Amino acid sequence: MIGRRWTQAFAEGSRDQRDLLGGKGANVAEMTRILGPDRVPAGFTITTEACVAYLGSGELPDGLLEQVREQLNALEGAAGRRLGAADDPLLVSVRSGARESMPGMMDTVLNLGLNDDAVTGLAAKTANQRFAWDSYRRFVQMYGNVVVGVAGERFEALIAEQKATRGVALDTELDTDDLMQLTHAFQDLYAFPQDPQDQLLGAIQAVFDSWMGERAITYRRLNRIPDTWGTAVNIQQMVFGNKGETSGSGVAFSRDEVTGEPEPSGDLLINAQGEDVVSGVRNTLDIAQMRELLPDAYTKLFEILRTLERHYGDMQDTEFTVEEGRLYMLQTRNAKRPAQAAVRFAVDAVSEGLLTKSQALLTIDAGALDALLHPTFGHLDYEVLARGVAASPGSAKGEIVFTAKDAVAAGEQHRDVILVRTFTEADDVAGFHAAQGILTSEGGKASHAALVARGMGRPAVTGASALEIDVEHREVRVGAIVLREGDMVAINGSTGDITSDDVPLVEPEMSEEFRTVLRWADELRVLGVRTNADTPDDAAKAVEFGAEGIGLCRTEHMFLGDRQPLMADMILAATTEERRASIDRLRPLQEEDFRGIFDAMAGRPVTVRLLDPPLHEFLPRPEELDPDDPRRARVESLQETNPMLGTRGVRLGILFPELYEMQVRAIFAAAARSPGANVEVMVPLVDYERELELIRRLIERVGGDLGVDPGSYAIGTMIELPRACFLADHIAEFADFFSFGTNDLTQTALGFSRDDIESRILGRYIDVKILDRSPFETIDRPGVGQMLRMGAWLGRKTRPDLKIGVCGEHGGDPDSIDFFHHSGVDYISCSPFRVPVARVAAAQAAIRAAPGASGAVG
Amino acid sequence: MIGRRWTQAFAEGSRDQRDLLGGKGANVAEMTRILGPDRVPAGFTITTEACVAYLGSGELPDGLLEQVREQLNALEGAAGRRLGAADDPLLVSVRSGARESMPGMMDTVLNLGLNDDAVTGLAAKTANQRFAWDSYRRFVQMYGNVVVGVAGERFEALIAEQKATRGVALDTELDTDDLMQLTHAFQDLYAFPQDPQDQLLGAIQAVFDSWMGERAITYRRLNRIPDTWGTAVNIQQMVFGNKGETSGSGVAFSRDEVTGEPEPSGDLLINAQGEDVVSGVRNTLDIAQMRELLPDAYTKLFEILRTLERHYGDMQDTEFTVEEGRLYMLQTRNAKRPAQAAVRFAVDAVSEGLLTKSQALLTIDAGALDALLHPTFGHLDYEVLARGVAASPGSAKGEIVFTAKDAVAAGEQHRDVILVRTFTEADDVAGFHAAQGILTSEGGKASHAALVARGMGRPAVTGASALEIDVEHREVRVGAIVLREGDMVAINGSTGDITSDDVPLVEPEMSEEFRTVLRWADELRVLGVRTNADTPDDAAKAVEFGAEGIGLCRTEHMFLGDRQPLMADMILAATTEERRASIDRLRPLQEEDFRGIFDAMAGRPVTVRLLDPPLHEFLPRPEELDPDDPRRARVESLQETNPMLGTRGVRLGILFPELYEMQVRAIFAAAARSPGANVEVMVPLVDYERELELIRRLIERVGGDLGVDPGSYAIGTMIELPRACFLADHIAEFADFFSFGTNDLTQTALGFSRDDIESRILGRYIDVKILDRSPFETIDRPGVGQMLRMGAWLGRKTRPDLKIGVCGEHGGDPDSIDFFHHSGVDYISCSPFRVPVARVAAAQAAIRAAPGASGAVG
Repeated sequence: MIGRRWTQAFAEGSRDQRDLLGGKGANVAEMTRILGPDRVPAGFTITTEACVAYLGSGELPDGLLEQVREQLNALEGAAGRRLGAADDPLLVSVRSGARESMPGMMDTVLNLGLNDDAVTGLAAKTANQRFAWDSYRRFVQMYGNVVVGVAGERFEALIAEQKATRGVALDTELDTDDLMQLTHAFQDLYAFPQDPQDQLLGAIQAVFDSWMGERAITYRRLNRIPDTWGTAVNIQQMVFGNKGETSGSGVAFSRDEVTGEPEPSGDLLINAQGEDVVSGVRNTLDIAQMRELLPDAYTKLFEILRTLERHYGDMQDTEFTVEEGRLYMLQTRNAKRPAQAAVRFAVDAVSEGLLTKSQALLTIDAGALDALLHPTFGHLDYEVLARGVAASPGSAKGEIVFTAKDAVAAGEQHRDVILVRTFTEADDVAGFHAAQGILTSEGGKASHAALVARGMGRPAVTGASALEIDVEHREVRVGAIVLREGDMVAINGSTGDITSDDVPLVEPEMSEEFRTVLRWADELRVLGVRTNADTPDDAAKAVEFGAEGIGLCRTEHMFLGDRQPLMADMILAATTEERRASIDRLRPLQEEDFRGIFDAMAGRPVTVRLLDPPLHEFLPRPEELDPDDPRRARVESLQETNPMLGTRGVRLGILFPELYEMQVRAIFAAAARSPGANVEVMVPLVDYERELELIRRLIERVGGDLGVDPGSYAIGTMIELPRACFLADHIAEFADFFSFGTNDLTQTALGFSRDDIESRILGRYIDVKILDRSPFETIDRPGVGQMLRMGAWLGRKTRPDLKIGVCGEHGGDPDSIDFFHHSGVDYISCSPFRVPVARVAAAQAAIRAAPGASGAVG
Repeated sequence: MIGRRWTQAFAEGSRDQRDLLGGKGANVAEMTRILGPDRVPAGFTITTEACVAYLGSGELPDGLLEQVREQLNALEGAAGRRLGAADDPLLVSVRSGARESMPGMMDTVLNLGLNDDAVTGLAAKTANQRFAWDSYRRFVQMYGNVVVGVAGERFEALIAEQKATRGVALDTELDTDDLMQLTHAFQDLYAFPQDPQDQLLGAIQAVFDSWMGERAITYRRLNRIPDTWGTAVNIQQMVFGNKGETSGSGVAFSRDEVTGEPEPSGDLLINAQGEDVVSGVRNTLDIAQMRELLPDAYTKLFEILRTLERHYGDMQDTEFTVEEGRLYMLQTRNAKRPAQAAVRFAVDAVSEGLLTKSQALLTIDAGALDALLHPTFGHLDYEVLARGVAASPGSAKGEIVFTAKDAVAAGEQHRDVILVRTFTEADDVAGFHAAQGILTSEGGKASHAALVARGMGRPAVTGASALEIDVEHREVRVGAIVLREGDMVAINGSTGDITSDDVPLVEPEMSEEFRTVLRWADELRVLGVRTNADTPDDAAKAVEFGAEGIGLCRTEHMFLGDRQPLMADMILAATTEERRASIDRLRPLQEEDFRGIFDAMAGRPVTVRLLDPPLHEFLPRPEELDPDDPRRARVESLQETNPMLGTRGVRLGILFPELYEMQVRAIFAAAARSPGANVEVMVPLVDYERELELIRRLIERVGGDLGVDPGSYAIGTMIELPRACFLADHIAEFADFFSFGTNDLTQTALGFSRDDIESRILGRYIDVKILDRSPFETIDRPGVGQMLRMGAWLGRKTRPDLKIGVCGEHGGDPDSIDFFHHSGVDYISCSPFRVPVARVAAAQAAIRAAPGASGAVG
């Protein structure tokens, strides 16, 4: 390791070195390069590699201290000052800086270099005793807290005591003597190191150690940042915003960070260090006020914001300090922003000539876009009753109901209701349609409630564990508060907030900018985007959001609600005649279902999946039936140990051909009545090519009976079992298209039942770093993803024109969409509210895949 | 198609043409070749290809009739007789002959060529009026029945009438006049074709059509013969066993077909055609009596049997006819034989120099061998109460008990019992150990009862649907018969027979020949053979049967019975202390379990699988608990929708590391007390390499704590999920060995739950030709098999010395073993009673794979 470089001066670096220098180090280096060394205080970065070495061995790597000393010498030489010098001391800040921003999660030490000698030097040089002692006091406090681990309250208590003794209210009212006394009192709390080299060593180690602090680990877990990256350490010459009324610190965005409007926004504090702005201790001024208070610095700042934005090609989020009228830039990074600001920026950036359309699209977080399609709370001035998991975006309010049946009844009376359940099951789905929103006390983002709600675009908050739901007494207790059936409740599925206040809901409008962005996405994407929709309403909604067809029309929901008894009769029929009679009653209902959907899609392709779920889902529970009821035994015999792996999918069609035949007849009959209907019949859960062959023959026979032109429809299959991926070349002999059912493929490939695993296993698996997210959220690339690629490749080997789609939940996930773009997939299909997300994500995938896509404009 | 050959004369063919000529055609051709044309009546074969063409188009293929005519001309020329001639007519037989023997399943027509003219010619030429008219009568009857489809009873009724009129009892008492009258009466039943060419055409089509007859289809389904093969038709000059006392027909085996002793056996009828022998209408003579009755033919027959046996290198099953003292051979084929005869033949054949050891081993049906290890019924003279599925071989008898608890209690009193259940579950397993045999009214060969029973070597009959089991009243009804608890019952798990007679059981002895065969198998096989055993008794039994180690020691059975409450306490513990306390009580018990097994295996490797099944299997059912019991909610929360895909396997070890830690401690402590113990710790259900890494660290840490030499044990994993096969190179980073759990791999790769599917889906899937057998019985080569190969290959890519085993049920299935031999597998592991099967099957696989293995001896 000897000879390895562990440090790099700001002036030598650039933004491309993010992995090595961290985000802050790379950006400061880049700023130094483009704004010049006078605008950015000098300094150097200790690399992330040094941190990784330290975390591995528990010791600072060989050579690091020597290199730090050399860098300091250079810094001292350039500044003409020395760390700890009694005449004109150099002070530095020591800040963490990971590859990805982890705001507030790690430690920072300011004013390092001060000691009993240097403070007098600083006072003399600046002719500002109070400033010098305030800086020293701050440093001793911060060092004790951050590096040594002395509880912050102990310092606060001494300050409060001093203020009481002096009879003043504000920190700023303390005078130099007070600050001297406090500084000495602070030094009594721990062994304060007077030697600046010791101070620096302690601070570096503290930053390294903070990488493995609890806060940081939690943050990384939530944000999927690997523990192995480590953090860099930035050591930078201090500039002082607390040198009086011509000094100050602030943060500035190059555009409005909420709306995206093309005017800089931000906050400023006069006579303060940066930490004061962030901590919120004092009320900040709006950046616009800077024009009067610090006019030169203001002009320079706005010029620099434009320069940085043009240089980075993205909206910037900066930190600055004004020291006695002179502006210093301390930090810049691409600004995080809500969806509406992201869209606004993208459109403006193109019209300003700042970015190409492709570049502009890449600045958008596609996954956040569906927030723009759902109602939101009209203001934030409400009392939070409880918080749960933000499971399905959008806000809703209505009367509390406790059962799906009550929700359906309320729906028929056009009352707005929120369905409140401990957890939900297939039986509750009719209630989802009827309710405005769903609220559960158990389950996370991948619970049944969350999945179904997202699929339907219903807002949902799940896992609100503070709620004690008592269905029997029709009430919900939250601590001492009791809500009863019929009471009003509002939920925000984008934040997880629950309130009983009557907060207004605001319907979103699809802004002109959003439409523009989506139009660009359509120009640039290669993947088709369809929707998963089971009703004419959902279909119409999806078309409005840009769906080019239905990739998955599930027919099982059509057998619930009123029709469940008919379905149960069919399944439990004692004779073939009885079964036929039940089927004959179901057929016209199915035909109407399909016709509504075909009409809504107006000639766009509609992939209808034949019945898939295990039969027992349509039956009463055995215990609901009288023990003497002869149907009870049959119902019992249809219960399965592992229904997911049981009598479902094409297996139903093989066992009960009359059931599939009925569905196919209804599809063709509906298509005949809906001009231009574009029908694709999809057979689920195929393992063996012979299964598909048999059902294909059945479909063709029914089509022939009804005189349907064999060229007017397609027959395909879901590929959702590992075996089917392996034997896709054989299966393709009988398929016009494949649609990968990545939900079930994930379940079987991993042997992971979504229902059973997400609640019990996933959290633990993330904790111990087996997973960084649910494989049901983003596709498991090396496992399930590779099986999909294998299936697609084998399928096309047999049939080069095979059309290939993906209709699992992953079809609406940007990371997964990027993978599908490279996997031979023709289209993705997702729930209606994810369609705009998918359009943008598909475009981003195409842009990233194109050669030279990242080049700057003009 | 013009110019294609659809026929071939016997003299031109050989046994290698089985696919084209069928088994019978190829064997007759071969016999003609080796015994000379004088010993085998001349004839020709219409190929299976002609049948396939006929079945495809519904018409005889172009050119067939012309070729048949040419062949007939040749036949007539050589014989100097003509079909239908009024002077000296040629008669032929028309017989089916598929690639695999389908005895009695298809149609045969004898004496074809007779008509009103030819019968007089035949009578004149043979100077035997009665013979001629008997032959004609038979032909008209057979043709009417077989080709035209007239019901057999209608002919029988006329015969009975004639006998009554004449006042005689036997067919042979009817005279020429009677036979003439009958022949004419028969011809009144249908339009008998006088033209021999029409007769032949009709017979050929009848044979072709019989391939798709119901009997034949059923037979093929049971014997896994593809429908696409078709049958050949053999047309052969008739010889007559019914020409008086110097004529006869018979069947002869080259060795005793039951015991395998080296003396020919068989049956003979004097003055009869072959059909009479097979039909069993008349009582046959033992072949030994032929020495006196037909001495020349007898000598010749025995000589030919030796010739054929030497030629075919296998025991032969022949048909012959003696016409006026001259022996004709009509058919020969390798003899089907029970296991003891197969073993005896193999050993004798080697000592006689007939076969090499390799060749001898290939004559044995390995799958049938475990019948030699189980007790059998001592005689067949018992009344069958009912029949079920032969689910686990061997016979047992004892008092009826209805619960596992009662079985355990009886076992403690050393009473023999049969556990009688509707179906069985994990809770019943303790009862399997205690009972002599298992009898259920539901489920097939792959039901829980069948699997567990086979695993333990307990005889079982399942799915005996005639039994109405009333556990509440402790009785079984079979029609009018009622058996009560304590009544005696006997079951034969090799046949499915159930009887309440006190039939004696005979303990098998492992014959000297069987030991010899197994010794040869061990010399020749490449695959290692281990056993799946969970108790010291099973382990000892398996060693006796030649197991070289334990490939799968499941620990879950160790937590049932008395220990279930301890396990439940552990799982339901409210605090970590409570959990630790339960675990501390379980550990010494586990240690004793392991020590017993290590001792029994005496230094052979023992692969212990850490706990695998979902926790709820160890818990009481929620409804068994009081609603106020606080444990009820926890038990409910542990119920899973799809337990197969739920919280089990390594997931348990990640969630409850203390549980795995306890098991590992017990393993190491037991090993320390059992000198030479050879420990392999196996982690089940791994998806991600990190799972295995974490558990590996845990095992190594515990080993370190206990001072275990890290080189003294191995750590590996089950590969039983499709993802694990895909990522096996990564998983192998942390594995010393892989063991493919092909049961669970089949369930996940196919999305087929064994419990749920076998009873409901499998039969239907076989009917409609999606499957020809259960994928849980013989490995699904193109799907699961290829995943296994991929996993093995990837694992060895990372770790060339990776040891690879298979421990699913497939490890005891000969067809699967043959596949594993070619798949990079080092050893297979199966239940103790399958170990000898596996040894022989592994040797057969090696022999078949060796170049030139099929060459004849010397």
